[in-house]
Order: sequence, then structure tokens, then C-alpha cells
Amino acid sequence: MLRNYLEPTQFAWRRDTETKDPKVKDWIFQAGGDFSFNEGGWDIAVLGVPLSRSSISVSGASEFPEAFRRAWGGFSTYNLDYGTDLKELKVLDLGNVKMHFTDIARSHDNITQAMKYLKEELPDAFPVSIGGDHSVTARLISGLKAAHPGKEIGILQFDTHLDLRDLADHGPTNGTPIRYLIENGIIQGKNVFNIGLHGFFNGQTLLAYAKEHSVNYITLREARKKGIAETVREAVAELSERVDLIYVTIDMDVLDIAFAQGVPASTPGGMSSHELLEGVYEAGLSGKVGAMDIVCLDPTKDTPALATVKTGVYTFLTFLTGVKNREA
Amino acid sequence: MLRNYLEPTQFAWRRDTETKDPKVKDWIFQAGGDFSFNEGGWDIAVLGVPLSRSSISVSGASEFPEAFRRAWGGFSTYNLDYGTDLKELKVLDLGNVKMHFTDIARSHDNITQAMKYLKEELPDAFPVSIGGDHSVTARLISGLKAAHPGKEIGILQFDTHLDLRDLADHGPTNGTPIRYLIENGIIQGKNVFNIGLHGFFNGQTLLAYAKEHSVNYITLREARKKGIAETVREAVAELSERVDLIYVTIDMDVLDIAFAQGVPASTPGGMSSHELLEGVYEAGLSGKVGAMDIVCLDPTKDTPALATVKTGVYTFLTFLTGVKNREA
Amino acid sequence: MLRNYLEPTQFAWRRDTETKDPKVKDWIFQAGGDFSFNEGGWDIAVLGVPLSRSSISVSGASEFPEAFRRAWGGFSTYNLDYGTDLKELKVLDLGNVKMHFTDIARSHDNITQAMKYLKEELPDAFPVSIGGDHSVTARLISGLKAAHPGKEIGILQFDTHLDLRDLADHGPTNGTPIRYLIENGIIQGKNVFNIGLHGFFNGQTLLAYAKEHSVNYITLREARKKGIAETVREAVAELSERVDLIYVTIDMDVLDIAFAQGVPASTPGGMSSHELLEGVYEAGLSGKVGAMDIVCLDPTKDTPALATVKTGVYTFLTFLTGVKNREA
Amino acid sequence: MLRNYLEPTQFAWRRDTETKDPKVKDWIFQAGGDFSFNEGGWDIAVLGVPLSRSSISVSGASEFPEAFRRAWGGFSTYNLDYGTDLKELKVLDLGNVKMHFTDIARSHDNITQAMKYLKEELPDAFPVSIGGDHSVTARLISGLKAAHPGKEIGILQFDTHLDLRDLADHGPTNGTPIRYLIENGIIQGKNVFNIGLHGFFNGQTLLAYAKEHSVNYITLREARKKGIAETVREAVAELSERVDLIYVTIDMDVLDIAFAQGVPASTPGGMSSHELLEGVYEAGLSGKVGAMDIVCLDPTKDTPALATVKTGVYTFLTFLTGVKNREA
Amino acid sequence: MLRNYLEPTQFAWRRDTETKDPKVKDWIFQAGGDFSFNEGGWDIAVLGVPLSRSSISVSGASEFPEAFRRAWGGFSTYNLDYGTDLKELKVLDLGNVKMHFTDIARSHDNITQAMKYLKEELPDAFPVSIGGDHSVTARLISGLKAAHPGKEIGILQFDTHLDLRDLADHGPTNGTPIRYLIENGIIQGKNVFNIGLHGFFNGQTLLAYAKEHSVNYITLREARKKGIAETVREAVAELSERVDLIYVTIDMDVLDIAFAQGVPASTPGGMSSHELLEGVYEAGLSGKVGAMDIVCLDPTKDTPALATVKTGVYTFLTFLTGVKNREA
Amino acid sequence: MLRNYLEPTQFAWRRDTETKDPKVKDWIFQAGGDFSFNEGGWDIAVLGVPLSRSSISVSGASEFPEAFRRAWGGFSTYNLDYGTDLKELKVLDLGNVKMHFTDIARSHDNITQAMKYLKEELPDAFPVSIGGDHSVTARLISGLKAAHPGKEIGILQFDTHLDLRDLADHGPTNGTPIRYLIENGIIQGKNVFNIGLHGFFNGQTLLAYAKEHSVNYITLREARKKGIAETVREAVAELSERVDLIYVTIDMDVLDIAFAQGVPASTPGGMSSHELLEGVYEAGLSGKVGAMDIVCLDPTKDTPALATVKTGVYTFLTFLTGVKNREA
Ligand SMILES: [Ca+2]
Ligand SMILES: [Ca+2]
Ligand SMILES: [Ca+2]
Ligand SMILES: [Ca+2]
Ligand SMILES: [Ca+2]
Ligand SMILES: [Ca+2]
Ligand SMILES: [Ca+2]
Ligand SMILES: [Ca+2]
Ligand SMILES: [Ca+2]
Ligand SMILES: [Ca+2]
Ligand SMILES: [Ca+2]
Ligand SMILES: [Ca+2]
Repeated sequence: MLRNYLEPTQFAWRRDTETKDPKVKDWIFQAGGDFSFNEGGWDIAVLGVPLSRSSISVSGASEFPEAFRRAWGGFSTYNLDYGTDLKELKVLDLGNVKMHFTDIARSHDNITQAMKYLKEELPDAFPVSIGGDHSVTARLISGLKAAHPGKEIGILQFDTHLDLRDLADHGPTNGTPIRYLIENGIIQGKNVFNIGLHGFFNGQTLLAYAKEHSVNYITLREARKKGIAETVREAVAELSERVDLIYVTIDMDVLDIAFAQGVPASTPGGMSSHELLEGVYEAGLSGKVGAMDIVCLDPTKDTPALATVKTGVYTFLTFLTGVKNREA
Repeated sequence: MLRNYLEPTQFAWRRDTETKDPKVKDWIFQAGGDFSFNEGGWDIAVLGVPLSRSSISVSGASEFPEAFRRAWGGFSTYNLDYGTDLKELKVLDLGNVKMHFTDIARSHDNITQAMKYLKEELPDAFPVSIGGDHSVTARLISGLKAAHPGKEIGILQFDTHLDLRDLADHGPTNGTPIRYLIENGIIQGKNVFNIGLHGFFNGQTLLAYAKEHSVNYITLREARKKGIAETVREAVAELSERVDLIYVTIDMDVLDIAFAQGVPASTPGGMSSHELLEGVYEAGLSGKVGAMDIVCLDPTKDTPALATVKTGVYTFLTFLTGVKNREA
Repeated sequence: MLRNYLEPTQFAWRRDTETKDPKVKDWIFQAGGDFSFNEGGWDIAVLGVPLSRSSISVSGASEFPEAFRRAWGGFSTYNLDYGTDLKELKVLDLGNVKMHFTDIARSHDNITQAMKYLKEELPDAFPVSIGGDHSVTARLISGLKAAHPGKEIGILQFDTHLDLRDLADHGPTNGTPIRYLIENGIIQGKNVFNIGLHGFFNGQTLLAYAKEHSVNYITLREARKKGIAETVREAVAELSERVDLIYVTIDMDVLDIAFAQGVPASTPGGMSSHELLEGVYEAGLSGKVGAMDIVCLDPTKDTPALATVKTGVYTFLTFLTGVKNREA
Repeated sequence: MLRNYLEPTQFAWRRDTETKDPKVKDWIFQAGGDFSFNEGGWDIAVLGVPLSRSSISVSGASEFPEAFRRAWGGFSTYNLDYGTDLKELKVLDLGNVKMHFTDIARSHDNITQAMKYLKEELPDAFPVSIGGDHSVTARLISGLKAAHPGKEIGILQFDTHLDLRDLADHGPTNGTPIRYLIENGIIQGKNVFNIGLHGFFNGQTLLAYAKEHSVNYITLREARKKGIAETVREAVAELSERVDLIYVTIDMDVLDIAFAQGVPASTPGGMSSHELLEGVYEAGLSGKVGAMDIVCLDPTKDTPALATVKTGVYTFLTFLTGVKNREA
Repeated sequence: MLRNYLEPTQFAWRRDTETKDPKVKDWIFQAGGDFSFNEGGWDIAVLGVPLSRSSISVSGASEFPEAFRRAWGGFSTYNLDYGTDLKELKVLDLGNVKMHFTDIARSHDNITQAMKYLKEELPDAFPVSIGGDHSVTARLISGLKAAHPGKEIGILQFDTHLDLRDLADHGPTNGTPIRYLIENGIIQGKNVFNIGLHGFFNGQTLLAYAKEHSVNYITLREARKKGIAETVREAVAELSERVDLIYVTIDMDVLDIAFAQGVPASTPGGMSSHELLEGVYEAGLSGKVGAMDIVCLDPTKDTPALATVKTGVYTFLTFLTGVKNREA
Repeated sequence: MLRNYLEPTQFAWRRDTETKDPKVKDWIFQAGGDFSFNEGGWDIAVLGVPLSRSSISVSGASEFPEAFRRAWGGFSTYNLDYGTDLKELKVLDLGNVKMHFTDIARSHDNITQAMKYLKEELPDAFPVSIGGDHSVTARLISGLKAAHPGKEIGILQFDTHLDLRDLADHGPTNGTPIRYLIENGIIQGKNVFNIGLHGFFNGQTLLAYAKEHSVNYITLREARKKGIAETVREAVAELSERVDLIYVTIDMDVLDIAFAQGVPASTPGGMSSHELLEGVYEAGLSGKVGAMDIVCLDPTKDTPALATVKTGVYTFLTFLTGVKNREA
């Protein structure tokens, strides 16, 4: 049962539900300790996944779900680029998946269960997960598959890395989620599209594995030549023909380090915030896209202006704008 | 009388007036306590406006006029992009408008008076104001109007925000200057062009107000497609047909937060420094443009490299390059 | 003799020479105190030049060689943008040129001697110098010329500055290397191409000197219109017709300050990391290019994420990718 | 009526009221929008005063009430130095006094009214105010006096400054609260004891005013010789003979700047955290002490470890420990 | 076998073994991949324990062993306070205990084994462990006990916390080591002395547990009154009568946060660096003390001056000074 | 001639010479480019020495003279600890000694000449030097000796280091000033008193040299036991019997690193600000003390609150308070 795997956030916003110009804080409903959210009708379900003990290098990405929520006061629900008001979407913040402090396997399992029950108990809600490091994506998709065993799932991944490291080395770290899913038969390599790779951040054996398993990737240089939005459009189109459901996973280290000082693995030469926003809007537009996550953003390393946290929230909202603007 | 509303800066540069390669510090003349600047012939008059108590959120933009001056040592007067040497312009730094520490209304009034007298006592000087938060623009334009009651004034605004908040809520904050000017009959909404809006930073009621009053805006996404310089050129051309005098106001939060950590309200997805520089040069070129300000830059929040302060100075100098290069 | 002018680094990596996915740390061989590197076959020779006492303003660029080496653990040898594995190049890290703490002239002389002997003792190795401030380039090229007195040397310079200051003012600082080389008859002005100038960072007398000596420069605005890679290609092509050997010098202050908080003289409006990487790859491709350096990166001023240091290493590796991919 | 002058905090903790080891967050009750707190029995009433527009220099002390609350999760209710568990005190967090963004006088007036009504509506609760800059103390004590017109009030002030600046200069800033109270006949100078003055941070005319009005001060050097706790004990004893009620005001700039980087006016040579804690415990012990505030702590300037904010919370809790441990 | 549980550090110092004024880097011998250290005669064996995934809150204490070693260049081996040159001690740096990235239990077990084999294979070496979070102490002492099953072990703990949390809650985190040892019968509560507790950082149930198990603690207030050195002397004397071997564990959060910004759990009101140094020297003097560790120092959160890392190294060296100066 | 060796500061304060509560900025007279200061009557002459190229490690101490002056606005002239108003001293700021950017020997020579001419042209002024790194002290005292060849000069040094490194190694760096003076026969070792040594920051050969030349030192541990002021008093008394003139040199690295993040060589366990202030006041009181300097404070590394720069100014003013309070 979903509520067994959840805990409410420590802080809650006091929502102003009467303002004409709502902020995100006034709009999203935060489930409390009683988790009485089943009355339903939710369009979007937000799930915090505060796990980053599983990260190869030190990461405070576990703190992003909380920082994400705290930043809601700085965003209107209205996106003037598209004339879209998100407040017409009914969004539920479920709180966070329960984590164990020293048993990572149990924490990972909780994530799988939470996603599975979420899809069972709130079948009409679009799940958005706020990580946590990238290891959580393997479990979220596992849970999704468990809820929809008959569906073929594809992945659209924004990342500087392939995430195809060998699980035998150190278990299911943030370097392994795509490999985990392939090796556990949950995803086929050919149904993965990675956008954003560049430079010297993936070893040659990982590329070899990608080729062997037909994982698709479009480097950032190539994507820039074609345009990020067009690149996403084509990837989604190709995936849509092959799968029943596309999962969008956004590793914030796809951003250039100048735009993302608060992502431990971001690198020079990555995407600008503007480019990422164009890409995620496009992804949100597709009716095949059925779940999304944002990972690897470590607010403890952000600049004092919280530039990276704000980019994380903006990415979430822009994706939802795409979702909202899907053709009927 | 102008000098009643001014106070000299606490520090003054020792100018080297003989060097062949002057720095900005060697070039701009800083008026002292006697304000003996009437001997005249000034092309440009710089006015510091150290007010940010009127800012909705905490702001040290009051410190920018001083930080702006301190950064002069790092800039030559020569712009090699255009082969233009600014030293041929005669520039007077008037010091700062006098501020009261606890009576914001009086500070605001001083700004209006300072601008009015500036235009009366130095009618041939082009006023450049260095803020302070954006509330000061409402007063600067009020003073300009008072000095030129018969002139129709238009506004070219670089901003992430519309600045059309309701004055009834909390008085004339930095969220209200455009609305203040419209409601006080100083400016017509149709004579305002805002460039730079994007994302989730303006509520829907503000957009409704903008439409109701025919305020023009070009979102950053649209401006990028057309090119920032071309966008500015078209806006200026359209304004030029309608008004006698264009006031350019640059809210530095139009910049992407990665380029402007020292602007409290800057956001992801905004302009790059390069884009802003292209835009302000274009604006400076127009003979209809008759005054300019830079606001909302808070040096107390800048990076140790002073990236934002330097961008503020560079913006000022690039605008002046446009002014210098106007066709005869 | 080369080893008289060198000292080993204080720290050394423990290399894993058996891994299939080597990191840069596992690949580059670091010479120890015995400097027994003459067994030979080296493709690339890396030389640290820890001198920045000669910088006009305070600089910790002397610390970059060490920071550069410490960052090797974060980079694979494989560049997936070009499908190129650098591990096939045999790279020797010679350690650092010996510096004297209070006798700058002696330090400068050591640099000249180190480069001269490097070319004599390791004639087939391509020298890459890691600075230090830009004054070192004058000495590195002087040493190169001493080793190849009959060769005409050209310079491709990425820089926000012309580096043509008068040596009579304060001796051979980081503002003077190009002038030093011209005035000492080592380089002809017409064989210098500078890419990256913009804005207000060079006085008019320096431009006059550049014109008088036919120093070529392409401003960043012009380069952006044409494309950075194409601009480099054309400059290299033109140089290739005139000289025997091209020296590429990369002053990291060519980057926009948002991308390079750790370069004391970087400015707003400069190159993005992405643009610089495109340019240096192109430069590396040319068979005429025979030496390279990276200067003016001060790790003591970098952001906590080490964004600038990482950009320095990435620049080095991307240049080598060009070298590796030269047509046979 | 009190609730007219209050607004609830934007965030609220979810309290765990069943834990055996409560954190401060689990213990303090936060009033919501309905302010139904009159059911009573409160021992302590916490009032946030988010005003720092009135500060002479830029201050974000307005953000301390929120930061103060957010830090509650890091403190147990149990003080093991004294074996005292604060959870036995019933503490109500009233939220914040309503502030106007551009009318400082109105904000000041709201503070007076809030304190007055607090004492009328919650007469048995001990008021603790969390500032804001020091100008708020003048209004809090004015409100206290309005509620208790017949009582003689004394002040125990921890401060690096006398706060006796002339109100004619810039109105009621943070440099004036003690003078405001003296000049408005609310307090007699002889009933003020200032502990913590040192060095070069008060002009001679302020000392002259202090002497003229018999304001008492013990410099930090003198207090250290005697011991901070003993100094406080004597001051309280002397005040207790003269007044009906002692108000303790803690300007956090009394701390040495090494301990309080997040207090804009803190200076070298000030108190250590340890010394301040000893002093406030002693103050809390006295039955004559009837109200307390903490001011001038600016969390926007704190270190990343939040050293100053934590010191502010610890100071509050240690004072309450004294209150709890008063002799029956 | 010890070497099975170790891995060498990635970097190694090049030691200058001929200098008359050695730095710590020139003195400590760093074992390489072959671990050929059995030739023996080592007085001190340093063991890095890079584990902080087990920390309750996000911690980069896993990075301290590496940062600790990098800071060796800034310390002489000569302590002039005591006229003691440490170079006469033969010190071996064993490298780090092997860690697994996602299996914390295995990492913990490796620590136990490493300590056990260390004492078996290097019985005459005094083990010094460099953590890591405080959970590692439970395993280090377990390993020590396994090597010396017949010995009664006592603990001298410098800490702001009791570390007696319930293991049932989240397993063996950094909040549990003392309880772990008591509950596993490795240590008796009465043989634990904790120095440094203060304020609101331990819940009442933990105190109750401490009392129930006769854990001894001297609060910092009490220790200051008596003097830190004297307090340590008495605790060691008392322990010496009861146990065969004293283990000294130094949780760096015992320091005041102003002295230890780089320790996540440090608090205001803690020890000064000076006080801690006095205490650890005294502890080192006792012949009963047979092992020591330093934990919870997170260099990723340190100030740019590396104030906390330097304090960690200084603490280590001062403790060794005590060891060196033990009476024969 | 003095003026040949000076250059004015780039910035100058606008002094308010009529205020009753002068700030330090209103009090000290800053000599301009004409250096017309010979009209005389100066009690104190301040000399900026912006040299730190001679520092062993990277240092921006060259920036302290400017930062020192910019901080004057935050200090009153009145010291309430002693009831002393410094404004009765007539203080001249001579500007800075001219420096050469690449010829350190010439810069050093300029310092000697500046001090020599200062004493000849302003014989009644007490020279206070604001460094720069500690190498400047050797030259300042050399200049003093040149002006007073017949006087025996003693040194009272506050420092964590002996500054007795061998000049043969790297010339006259900041590690050598005392040895330079001894080896050049300007000072006798027995007339040097060093207060503040502690820990592991001086090699044993330096101690041996100190003993060989009878250099006196009192470690900080010893000084704390006796009291810093008493320690200074005794050192000054002993020196006063032996020499004609005492030079006080304050290496700010004598401070604990928690109090002096902006001093590159400060260490844990050093003096608190409070202790240093007590010491320098005592030193200033002695009629034998005839010159003073403050060195090694690097404002480019200071905290955002400028804690270290403020401590430097406070130290200067407190020393002058001692000078002012000398017995007639
Ligand atoms: Ca990833
Ligand atoms: Ca990644
Ligand atoms: Ca605005
Ligand atoms: Ca704005
Ligand atoms: Ca250059
Ligand atoms: Ca340059
Ligand atoms: Ca105060
Ligand atoms: Ca104060
Ligand atoms: Ca602990
Ligand atoms: Ca602890
Ligand atoms: Ca020294
Ligand atoms: Ca020193």
C-alpha cells in the first residue's frame, strides 16, 4: 500500500488558495501524515526520493526534494512563453519515499514499491519523481514496470553519462541505472535514447556496451547542430513507434557546470539552461510520455543565489507545461 | 535646484588625465561637494540612485552606484568591437541622489526632483541613472516628464518582469514602476516595450493588465529567434514613430542567473551577457533615446570575481558606445 | 640539460595501467626525481610552469599546474564526440620548470632553457605547457626559437587582450608577451593571429601598435558570426602559408567570466566553454601546429565545483584530440 | 486586536508530538491563519518581526524570523548543561508582525500595536521577539509600556553599540532605539544597562549623550575581567531595585565577527558564543525580566554552515533555560 | 590478511628524505599497492577510513583521509611548544580501508577486519584511524577487541554528542557507535568518558541511557572550569585503573562551529582549537592509550582557507606529540 | 627624496572635517600626487607597502594597503575602552611605496629608501607601515637604520613563524626578514622578541639558528599562561634596557585561522583577535617603540564580511591608542 512507503515532508507551505496569481506553493497540494489523497482526480503526483548514499562520489542530492519544495515561492503557475497556466492541472505532492539510513538495498526496494503502488492507487496521475541520485531511476522504472507488466517502456535520458557501469563493481550506484534495467529485462537497450553526451566523461567500454545493446545516443554537439527541441522531437517520435510508454529521466549534470554549480557531476561544455528547457518542453508534449524524474541535483553545493535549485524547479514546471499543452 | 538633491560619493578616483590609454576612472569627472559642474558642455550626466529599501525582497542594489564606480579601473574607454573611443564624450558623475533612511516616500521624491532639475540645469546632458531597485525608474521618468511636460515619453525595458503590480498592495515597490507611470498618466501603456520576459515569473493578472493597457512585450524566446539586436531595432523603430523621447531601462535580472548571480531576481533561461550587450548597443544608437538607467544589481550578492558588477559597467559603456556612434 | 631546469611535482598519481577504461591519471606518465624519460617515444611532453609573480595583478596561476594534474581523475581518455581515444598517444609529464621565489628574471630564463632543451632532448615530442601567467609564453617561444633558429614561428592566440604592453613600463609582465617576441625579433607581428578580443579591455595605443606591426586580430563578435571553428580554420590556413611552425597559446581569460570565475582577467561577453572547445579542436588538427600552452587560470579563485580548472583540463584534452586526429 | 497585526509564516513544521526526544520543531506550536491561540496557558509567546528596511546599512535581518524557525530541527528541547527540559514550557509561535513594503512608519506602528495587544490578550505569556533590526526594540518596548503604563521598565542590552543616534538625522533607524525610548519618555536612561561595548564603534557624542542621560554601560573588557555571568548578575540586581520589569535586548553584533559572520555590524574583539550564552542564561534567571528580543542577525550573510543562525537559536533556547530555572 | 582490506591512496607524496627540516609529507611513509610494510619497526600505523554513507545527514567525511594527507605539506615535524620532533617516530600510512559503494554493512565489516589484522600483523604499531563518520569507531574498536579478546577496553571520547542512539531505528549510523559497542558487549558503559557535551544536542532519552549504563560525561562547561587538560588527565587516570587499553576517539564536532565550519554537526559554544589541542596532548601522554581516531570532518564543507582540515592534521600531530613524550 | 619613492592611492576619501563624531576616514589626511605634506606637525605617517610577489606562497597581501583604507569608514576615532580619541593625533597617509612589477629587488630597495627619507624628511612622525608580505619589514628596518645609523634597534614581533629562513635558498622572501637583518648587521638576534610561536610551523634548524643568535621567543602557550599584555610588557621592558628604539612588527598570521581566514599562513591554535588587541595596545604604550608595521593580511582571501581586514584596521587603531596614551 502506497502510504506504507511514504513519509510526509517536515515542512509544509501554508497555501493561499484564493489568490488570483498563485505561486507554485499555493497550487500544489502537499499530502500530510494521514496521506488522505485518494479522493482523487489528481493529474500529477510528485514523489520525493531523498536517496544519495548510493552515489559513487559524495552527493547531497538527497536534499533536493526538500530544496525543490522550498523554492516554490519564487515561481508563478503561469508560463508566459506558452500562455499556459499550470494551475488547471491538479497536482499532489505525496511527500518522500521512506529511506533507511544504512540499508541502501531496502531504500531502493522502497522506491520500487512506492512507484508500483502509486500507479496502482493513483492510476490516472502522471508520476514525477524528484531525486536523489540517478540510481533511483532504475527502481522507479522497475516499479512502473511492475504496475504495467505488459507495457514496453522506453527511456528518454538527458545526461552527460551513459549510466551503463557494471553492477558487479559496486552494486546499483548512480552510474548503473540503465544497465540495471537492461540486465533485469525491464528495458531494451534499443528503447533508450540518451541526449547530451560529450567529451571525456564515458569510458570506451561503456560505449561498447551501449553499441552492443543498441542504446541510442545523440551527442550534444550533434543535438546542437540540429536544435535541441528538434532532436528531442525525433527521439520521441522514434521511441513512440516502438514502445507503449516513455519515461523521461533528466540527470541535471547534462547542464554546463557554469549553469549547474550545484550538480556534482556537471561538466564544462554541457547544455545551457535555455537549451534544456526547450528540450523538456518538447518531451512533455508527447502523449506517449508517462512518467518523469529529475536527479543528481545537490542543493548543498549550489551557489548562494540557488541558481541550480531554481533551474531544477523551472525544468519541472516547463516539462509540465508540455504535458498541459498536449494535443487532445 | 539640483545640488540640493545630491550628495557626493564618499570615495573619489584620482584621475590620470594625461595617459594615452585612459581607463574609465581617468575619463569620467566626479563632481565633489561643491557640485561646480555648471561650466557645462557635458554630454552625459551620471546619477547614482542608492535606494533599495523599496525592494519587495531584501536587496543591496543601493550599493551598486558605489560598486559601479569602483569597477571603473578595469575598463578602457576604447571599445574595439566598434573602434569607438568613449573619451570623446564628456561625462559628469553627479554623485548620488540624497536618500532618507526611513522615509522612502521622501527618497522617491528626491529622485523625481533630481531628474527634473538635472534636465533643467544640464539640458544638453544625456542622463544615465545607476540604481537602486526598479522603483526608482518610476520617479526618474516622472522627473523627466516634469522637465518636459509636452513630450510623449516611451519606454524600452529589458526585464524578466512586467513591473505592473498593484500599487495598492504595498506602495511603490520595485514591482510597480510601469504601472505607476501608467496610472499617473506619465506614460501610455502602448508606449512601453518589454524585452526579455520568459517562464514563470509574472502572474496572469499582470499579463491581463498589460493587455488591457496595450503594453508591448516580446518574450525572450521570440527575441532569440529574431535576434536580440533586430528585436531592439524594431521596438525602437516602432516607438520612435509614436513618441518624442525613449527612456531605456535595464533591469539586470533580464540576465540568466548564471551570468548574474548578483541580481536577486535573475532567473535561469534569461539572456546571456553577450545578448544583452548586443541589445543595449542597438538601443544606444537611436537618436530618440534620451535617458537610460540600470537597476536591481546587488553587488553584495555578487561572486568574488565581481562578475555581475563588471557586467553592469560593461552594459553602461556599451550603451554609451551606441550613443557615441549615432548617425549625425 | 633539460633536467637541470625541472623539478618533479610534489604529488604523483598511482596509475592503474591495467584498467580498460583509463582515466587521464592512469594514462599520463609522470616523471619523477630521476627524470629518466629519455628512453623515448613520447608523443606529447607536458611542462608545468608555475610562475605568476610576473602578473600585473595578483594571480595564483602558479598553482594551475598542480591543480591541473589533480583534476585528471575526473576525465576519461576517450572523447566520444570524435570517437577518439587519447590513450594511444604517449604522454610524458615532465614536472615543473624550476622557479626562484624572488628573482623573476631567473625564473623566466629557466623557462626559455627548459623549452630549448626539451626540443633538443625530446625532439619528437609535442610540447604542451601549463602555466602560469601569460609572461611565460614569451619565454617558451624564445626557447622554441633557440632550438629551431631557422624556423619561422607563428602564433595563434586565444585571448581577450593583445598582450602588447610596453616592456619599458614594468618589464616582462603578463601584459607583454607578444610585444616581447616582436621586439626581440623572435616573431613577426604579421604572424600573430589573435581571436577573442572584445569590448573595453585594450587601450587604443595597443591597437595602434598592433596595426603598426601588422598583428592580426579577429574580434569575438566577428568570430561568432563566422563560427569559432571556421575562424580558427582560416587563421591557421593563413598562418600555415607563412610560417614553419604554429604555436597555440590559450589565455583562459578569453572565456566569459560566467564560465571562468577562476581566471582573474576574464570578462563578461567572452567565449563560452563550448566555443573555446570547438576552436582548440580545430587548432589541434593542423599539422603546422607544433606547441601549445594554457595560461592565466588561477585555481585559488575558482568556484567550489572547480568549474574553471575542469575547463582547463578539458581544453587540453580537446586540443590533443585534434592532434590525434590529424590526417596522416 | 492582536490578530489584525499578525500574519502566519509561509512554512509550518509538521510536529511530531509523540516522540520522547522532541526537537524544538516538535515542541513550539505555530499559530496558523486562524490564530486561535486564545485557549491559553501559554508560557512563552514568540513574535517574528521581519523588518530591516529601517537599517542604516543594507540588512537582511528581516529574514531571520523565518531562518530561525527553519533551524529548529537541529535542536533538542533538553539542555544538558543544566539538566533542564524546555518542553515543559508551553510555547506559542504567533507568526510575524505584518509589514508594509514601502511605509516604514506603518510597519513600526504595527510592531507597537502587536506588542501591546499581545500583552493584553496573552497577559501571562512571556514575549520573545525575533527581529529584524534593532529599530524594532523601540517599538516593542513602546507597546509593552502601552500595555503596562504604570510600570517602570528597564533595559539590559547586549550590544557593540549604544544605539543613541540622533533621530533627527534619518528617523528611527537601528542606530536609535534607546534614544527613541528616552526621548519619548518610555524609559529613563539610568535604567538602561549596556554590556559589550568595545573599541571604535561609537562616536564620542554618543558617549556624551549616554553620560548626560545616565545610561549605564560596562565595556566588554571590564565584563571579561569580572566574568560575563557575574556582570549580568550585578546589572540585573541593580536594575531590579529600580524598575518593575526588565526587557532584555540582544543585538547579535555583540558577538565577535569570527563567531557571527552573519551579523552585518559584528566586529573583531567581541564576545564569543560561549560568553554570550553564559550571559543570557543569567539574564533569563531573573524574575524581573519580562520580555526579550534578538535582533540584527542577517541569515543572508551567514556562512554555509549557518553558524550565526544556529547561534541565534541557541541564544534563544539558553535564555529560556534561565527562565525555566527561575526560583519559585 | 590486512592487505586484503586495504587500497592505496590515489595520490602519493614524493618524499624528500634528506631535508633537515622535514615536513610531515617527507616523514610519513605511504604504503603503495604492494603493501610491503611488514619489514616492520613501525611506531604508528595510519589507516584511512573513507566511509560516510552511514552518516545520518549528508556528509563528505569520506573525503577527509585524502584531504588529511594533502595537507601534510603545511606542517613541520617539529612541535616547538614541547621541543619535540616527531620524525623520530616511524609512521606508516597504510592507505584506506576498502569500501563498497552500496553495501554499507560490508564496508563496516572491512573496517573491523582491517583493524583486527592490523593489530595482528603490526602488533607494535599504534593505530591511528582517520575517518569517516563516527560509525567507523564502533568497528575499529570491534576489530581491536577481536585482536585482543582478553583486554578490557575503555574509551575517551571528545564529542558534542553521546552517540547512544538506538540501532533499531536506522542501523549503525554515526549516532550509534557507543551504544553499538555496549550492546555488543565490547565495551562497558562505565568505561566510556565523554568530554565536550553542551547545550541542546542530545535528547533526554539518550541521557537516560547513559545513566542507566553508567557512561561518564563531563560537560564542556564543567571541563572549562577545571581546565580541559586537567579534565582529560583525571578521566584518563580513572580509566587507567579500570581498563587495559584506552581508545581515544575525537569527533571533530566537539569544536565550536566558528573553529570548525567543515564539520557538519559542530555547534556554537563548543571547544576552541586551542582547547582541543591541550586535551589531545594530554591524552596522548598516557601509556594506557593504545589507539586513536579522528572522525566527522568533512573537507567538502570547509572554508577556502581549509581551516578545519588544518585543525584535523594539527590535532593528529599534537596527539602524537603526547605519545612521543610519554615517560619511559 | 621621499616623494620619488611614493605614489598616491588610486582612490581618496572625501573627508568630512566638520563632523563631531569623525570616522577614521574623516581624520587621516591622504597625501595626493603633489605630496605637499612637508608643512609638518604630523604625529603619525602611514606608508602603504603593496608588495607580495616576494611571498613564498601565493599572496594578495599587496592589496591590503588599499583594503585597509577602504575600511576606514567603519571605525570611529574614539576608543571607548580607554576613553581615548585618536583624532588628537595628526595622521598623514603618504600613499604607497612605488613598486616594480617584475623586479622585486628594485621594489625592496624602494622600501628601504622610502623609510630612510621618511625619517629624514618627517623626523617627528611615527612611521606605520601597512604591508605587503613580511619581506618588507627587513627593508623598512634597514631604512630606519640608515636614517639612524647610531641607534640600536630592537624588534617586537607578533608571529607564528621565526622568519629565519636561509636567504641563500630563494632570496629575501617573507620567510627571511629577521635573518636578513641579523646577517646584514642591522639587528642583533638578542634584540628580537617573538611572541606567538606554536605548534608545527617552524623547522628545527630555524630554532637552532634562533638559539645560536640568541633570538628570544615566547610561545603562545607560555604567553597565555602569563597573559598576553603582561608578556608584551615584560618583553618591551627587557628590550628597552638594551636598545634605543623598538620596532613592532605584526604578522597577522599570529591570529588563529578562525579569526583570520584572510591571512594565508594563519593556523589553528593561534591568538584570538581580543588577545592580539591587548598585546598591541601594551606595545604602543612604550616610549621606546618608534615604528610599527602590519603584514601578511591578504584581503582577496577574506570572508565576505571582511572579518580579517577589519581586524587589521582595529589592530592599527588600538596600537595608536597605546601611542596616544603614553605617559608624558
Ligand atoms: Ca546519470
Ligand atoms: Ca550523469
Ligand atoms: Ca523590473
Ligand atoms: Ca525584474
Ligand atoms: Ca594574455
Ligand atoms: Ca588576457
Ligand atoms: Ca543595536
Ligand atoms: Ca549593534
Ligand atoms: Ca560522535
Ligand atoms: Ca558528534
Ligand atoms: Ca612572518
Ligand atoms: Ca608568519
